[in-house]
Amino acid sequence: MNDFQYHNTTDIRFGRNHIDAELHDAVAQFGNKVLLTYGGQSIKRSGLYERVLKLLDGLEVVELGGIAPNPKIDSVREGQKLAKDNDVQVILAVGGGSVIDASKVIASARYYEGDPWDLVVKANGADRMLLPQLPVVDILTLAATGTEMNFGSVISNPETEQKLGTGGPQSPAVSFLAPELTFTVPANQTAAGSMDIMSHLIEQYFDKAPANDVSKGLIEGLMRTVIKWAPVALDQPDSYDARANLMWSATMALNGIVRSGNQNGWTVHPLEHELSAYYDITHGEGLGILTPRWMQHVLNEDTVALFARFGRNVWQINGEDDQQVALEAIDRTEDWIENLGIPMTLPAVGIKDEANFNVMATSAVKVGQLQTNAYVGLNVDDVITIYRESMKDWQKLSL
Amino acid sequence: MNDFQYHNTTDIRFGRNHIDAELHDAVAQFGNKVLLTYGGQSIKRSGLYERVLKLLDGLEVVELGGIAPNPKIDSVREGQKLAKDNDVQVILAVGGGSVIDASKVIASARYYEGDPWDLVVKANGADRMLLPQLPVVDILTLAATGTEMNFGSVISNPETEQKLGTGGPQSPAVSFLAPELTFTVPANQTAAGSMDIMSHLIEQYFDKAPANDVSKGLIEGLMRTVIKWAPVALDQPDSYDARANLMWSATMALNGIVRSGNQNGWTVHPLEHELSAYYDITHGEGLGILTPRWMQHVLNEDTVALFARFGRNVWQINGEDDQQVALEAIDRTEDWIENLGIPMTLPAVGIKDEANFNVMATSAVKVGQLQTNAYVGLNVDDVITIYRESMKDWQKLSL
Repeated sequence: MNDFQYHNTTDIRFGRNHIDAELHDAVAQFGNKVLLTYGGQSIKRSGLYERVLKLLDGLEVVELGGIAPNPKIDSVREGQKLAKDNDVQVILAVGGGSVIDASKVIASARYYEGDPWDLVVKANGADRMLLPQLPVVDILTLAATGTEMNFGSVISNPETEQKLGTGGPQSPAVSFLAPELTFTVPANQTAAGSMDIMSHLIEQYFDKAPANDVSKGLIEGLMRTVIKWAPVALDQPDSYDARANLMWSATMALNGIVRSGNQNGWTVHPLEHELSAYYDITHGEGLGILTPRWMQHVLNEDTVALFARFGRNVWQINGEDDQQVALEAIDRTEDWIENLGIPMTLPAVGIKDEANFNVMATSAVKVGQLQTNAYVGLNVDDVITIYRESMKDWQKLSL
Repeated sequence: MNDFQYHNTTDIRFGRNHIDAELHDAVAQFGNKVLLTYGGQSIKRSGLYERVLKLLDGLEVVELGGIAPNPKIDSVREGQKLAKDNDVQVILAVGGGSVIDASKVIASARYYEGDPWDLVVKANGADRMLLPQLPVVDILTLAATGTEMNFGSVISNPETEQKLGTGGPQSPAVSFLAPELTFTVPANQTAAGSMDIMSHLIEQYFDKAPANDVSKGLIEGLMRTVIKWAPVALDQPDSYDARANLMWSATMALNGIVRSGNQNGWTVHPLEHELSAYYDITHGEGLGILTPRWMQHVLNEDTVALFARFGRNVWQINGEDDQQVALEAIDRTEDWIENLGIPMTLPAVGIKDEANFNVMATSAVKVGQLQTNAYVGLNVDDVITIYRESMKDWQKLSL
């Protein structure tokens, strides 16, 4: 178990009865000049937009709508200008991961004189830029990324074909998690969001830190929860229990708790970020396609014990033979993803040829530091192999 | 899954390399007048006391030592006077749960003109007193109570034979968790501390809130961790892995995360608080004696499904019959506690007769609101039955 620091001050208001009673004060505690951010038309259709405006009565609200999935740096630039021009004191983000991610970067861009893409590019290393941030309050409308209780954002730049993670000094100040707001999330987004949660858990579970049973035990519990409730949410979109378990799992999967004491970086996310940077596919679908192929590729005599633990404690597979339990666990994972309705090959999401595999693999290895920092080190050829396997139908591994 | 708010700002510094590098600044950020609190001689014997004083070089330190297990209100009174007289700006608590609990109440008593026992008695209800608090920084030396990342304290008043829980507005500002500081914890305290962690998990697991799989999944992972590592810590007191898993499990068990969305209050703790209020026994030992008897008493057709889940997911018992799995799970729990070396009857900890059972049971039912607020409602007779069963040797329940 490695050393760690955990410090997360996000104030979570979870459930049915918080928004109407508490939203106004949660925002107004930071000032009366509010930047309201959101995505497309869905919050207008659902009535949430009107409801929020009514609750903000008495505050000065400027709006930035139209923040797209895989949020683009242009939205951040627009938000930066609005925040400065209007001397905004707090951002209220209403939406899913994209809206909140963009808002967190706008919160820092408010205090930056240059182009906010700098804040994304210079997120790591010696020249890291860590500006102050406006407080962000959010109302989450999709269970997926966990951004509602962490420091990170992922921003895309179509000009440079880059999709990069960045982190600010603060997690959101207050996050309202109201599961019933996700009743209207369509099946494909429910599936992609659930896969995103599952992927975050998998990325942090397959970790080299010795004897970190707290992390692994917490993650196993969250995985079983997502495995159980995602199909229910697809079958009964207005099941409060299903939506609530998915939403809180999403937050817990990526608020830093479950990776405490961990060691290595992530693998499948860097591989997927290349796909959605080049082809703008749905992030959760890319993860769903890549994850079982990655598992198959990194299963070896060093990793089989952890894959077998995953099989026994998460998939509740009986059996003495680690290798067989591991193979069955990977098959069960693939099967669960497929049953969510996620297209399971790259051609099925529109990636018809290998033209960009080399350049994408090179970038993934570099950005993800995959040779030195991954659970199992991967080089460019390894990544190309995983992309190539993702072109074909899945072949069952276990007997 | 019920509504909840989760907001916990404690800054955790976990591992080998934080104290020397960061303690001074963690304290000094709040001012240069420090109240240093601690318990008996163990931190002097171990060298920790000298090490801490050296790290506080340049700050004005006043000391309050001698805080006893089951901390007494007299220590709080003494701390209140020291904090006021010296215009203290921050408290540094070095010790286990008792030292930190007392320090958190002193932190509020600093701002109170009356007797600090008022702060304990008026912790709930309409006349709740919620004063500001001095920031508390702590260095934890025992994995047990979780006080290092929560709002609560338990304080005893020998004059009134009361042991009561209270809560302040703040959890500790910064908690240093260095597992190697617990290498020297004697076997009986290691066992009692591990039982305390396990009991916190059990109290929150056996909960009526519908469909709260996140909570139950997280708790199952923590329980398996404690079950695995407590015997290792007893066998190899300087196993870093064992001490680290126990310490972080203790914090996670009671920082509010795992009870998010829960419904009912606790049962075994109110029963035990009466024992240690009347007989000053070790809290974790009292919990160890009472827990299996409570489980046996509340197992019924309404609760058997959850006990069976506990058996399957925590004790990894196979079997189709819920009742048999439940009974075996209770036996396994009792067996694990006994193997920690905890005395398993009340006479074994010096409680030789039933003289106080009626008055203790009456108080436990009242303080714990056990008739209305427990997982399974208990009246005075139920509690007396549990105390009586605790006089006898355990009889195996399963085949």
